[in-house]
Amino acid sequence: MADATTASQGTFVITEAQPLTLDSGRTLAPVKVAYQTQGVLNEDKSNAILVCHALTGDQYFSGRNLLTDRPGWWETMIGPGKTLDADRYFIICSNVLGGCMGTTGPKDINVETGKPFGLNFPVITIADMVRLQKRLIDHLGIKQLFCVTGGSMGGMQVLQWAANYPEAVYVAVPIATAARHSAQNIAFHEVGRQAIMADPDWHGGDYYAQGVVPKRGLAVARMAAHITYLSEAALQDKFDRNLQDRAEVSFGFDADFQVESYLRHQGSSFVDRFDANSYLYITRAMDYFDLAAEYDGVLANAFRARGAVETEFCIVSFTSDWLYPTAENKAVVRALNAAAAKVSFVEVESDKGHDAFLLDEPEMFTTLGGFLRAAAVRRGLAGR
Amino acid sequence: MADATTASQGTFVITEAQPLTLDSGRTLAPVKVAYQTQGVLNEDKSNAILVCHALTGDQYFSGRNLLTDRPGWWETMIGPGKTLDADRYFIICSNVLGGCMGTTGPKDINVETGKPFGLNFPVITIADMVRLQKRLIDHLGIKQLFCVTGGSMGGMQVLQWAANYPEAVYVAVPIATAARHSAQNIAFHEVGRQAIMADPDWHGGDYYAQGVVPKRGLAVARMAAHITYLSEAALQDKFDRNLQDRAEVSFGFDADFQVESYLRHQGSSFVDRFDANSYLYITRAMDYFDLAAEYDGVLANAFRARGAVETEFCIVSFTSDWLYPTAENKAVVRALNAAAAKVSFVEVESDKGHDAFLLDEPEMFTTLGGFLRAAAVRRGLAGR
Repeated sequence: MADATTASQGTFVITEAQPLTLDSGRTLAPVKVAYQTQGVLNEDKSNAILVCHALTGDQYFSGRNLLTDRPGWWETMIGPGKTLDADRYFIICSNVLGGCMGTTGPKDINVETGKPFGLNFPVITIADMVRLQKRLIDHLGIKQLFCVTGGSMGGMQVLQWAANYPEAVYVAVPIATAARHSAQNIAFHEVGRQAIMADPDWHGGDYYAQGVVPKRGLAVARMAAHITYLSEAALQDKFDRNLQDRAEVSFGFDADFQVESYLRHQGSSFVDRFDANSYLYITRAMDYFDLAAEYDGVLANAFRARGAVETEFCIVSFTSDWLYPTAENKAVVRALNAAAAKVSFVEVESDKGHDAFLLDEPEMFTTLGGFLRAAAVRRGLAGR
Repeated sequence: MADATTASQGTFVITEAQPLTLDSGRTLAPVKVAYQTQGVLNEDKSNAILVCHALTGDQYFSGRNLLTDRPGWWETMIGPGKTLDADRYFIICSNVLGGCMGTTGPKDINVETGKPFGLNFPVITIADMVRLQKRLIDHLGIKQLFCVTGGSMGGMQVLQWAANYPEAVYVAVPIATAARHSAQNIAFHEVGRQAIMADPDWHGGDYYAQGVVPKRGLAVARMAAHITYLSEAALQDKFDRNLQDRAEVSFGFDADFQVESYLRHQGSSFVDRFDANSYLYITRAMDYFDLAAEYDGVLANAFRARGAVETEFCIVSFTSDWLYPTAENKAVVRALNAAAAKVSFVEVESDKGHDAFLLDEPEMFTTLGGFLRAAAVRRGLAGR
């Protein structure tokens, strides 16, 4: 029996009998979904919270990450007595489609060829990721999620859930996100992809067979991206121009500055835990994300396409987030207002940049905690 | 005889008799300096303007760039009747030390080995670049420059000139710059350097002998840097999420979006005109720039170290410049105020980002034009 303090791992498989149909028109089967849960699903299955992870995240929101041995990525948010309270809720997070932590992605075997997919893996979208999550939720017998939440790309999935499966989402909490990927964000992703593809060890995506990994390219991609996750103020506060283990600059190309050493570490540690092709596919899915596109650019219509908007929203942004700035989050608020949805919005004062959603941000916890408690009362979940 | 409409090219050589002593303690000779001039130096040599170029700039501020066949990089600013008026002033710009457009840099032959320097080239600083420019100015018999100006890294050189050779600078016009390179800017440079060094064709800097160029790494470096030269608004206005020569996304990794195609072009065209090792050395010089460092962090002391500050300053920043934001420029203004210098400051409203200093920005031209006209009257240059 699952309990609130320990996370459990699960795997769900979609078979050839009911393949996953993708936005590209291609179908995919078998598809394996790796997921983690914590807490206990109540009898009427009304207390489930789906957590959607970000670009380089995974299902290990809590406890130890079994693949990297690092702590869960959202331990600040999730656990017994925490904002997403494992004593009250059944919390689920699955590795996204195209990922590399157990869910089917480009490094897995293509049953048609008997070899890893590489670039034969279909290009996927945020809607495809959500489509697969919906299959998992159906499999778990959950008709309506109490809450769907996540930050960054996780927030994109939340918005896609609310648009495509509104009847399955009681409340939606997208954090530090946008309804469309901006030109600047596409540009940064393209730099990362080009860095990976420029690495001769990438071998056109077929590096698995060569026994190598495009480490250098992936590290550069990660370094560039990592800068965008922080803020200038955070980098300044943390590193300023401090030197790394030396009193004077070296007049050379070593990591003289702490910020260089930090970035190099971010790059080199990333390549040990992440698949380069997954990085290509997931960034591409984010670039393609534009929720209003199939509604003539009218975002409100994406939310009301399936009738009146019953889902309630709580949207959070951070003042120093320049990757998904407050303006992008407010655009979602405006569209939800236009769709007559109930929506709360809070801009949290923080100098930690985009990564603030992963960190100890009391105002975020207070906001979400209050919102969820009120929703739980309405849903008849309070006091259990 | 030189005239105002045509730019002239010159070369000046420092010989072993009087080598250049660098901040690293190393000496360098011979050193070749490639420079361009426009306009006529007056009899008392009081009408000279030194223009300092940015990271990937060169001496070709006007006319055709003889090496790339592109137009001069500051034609918006310089020419007969323009803000830096070639009818009135004698305008000089030299390729920086460590550059690749004619001034000695890592791709040139090391006389000690008979082979290109590569990474045996000494690591240089902004002060070293300025030291070499001073030698050129001395060689031209100019005791005091009427004006020293430049944007970005050019602005750093302007500040260094005003600090180290105040008697030689009548007015100083640093544009879109900073007195110290920020942690975030060091971080972006480090990404670029790592991209270059990750390219196997870099060969530890000895690619010249191998007949190859680390094109892929240098292109990635340029792409990442190029994003920082623009603003999110500029990218949005210019590209939004527009597709490149297609009606639908390709579900692949081609340049679906115009912004991707634009960035790829920026990367691939750059490698044809710029030396990868020069990119390493010049970014390093920028990272090392911290004008206050040898004055216990008190920037005002850098300006008054050689006595009362007689040079007049005009400082310009741009609202959407996030690489050298207004706050960094204002820090210079505050230090100059503390040093009792005369200083004008204008923040130009622009959505074009850092690159605004290269573009058609009427408010910048008006500001600088007015400042220079008043200074010319004081200097006895008006009406000639």
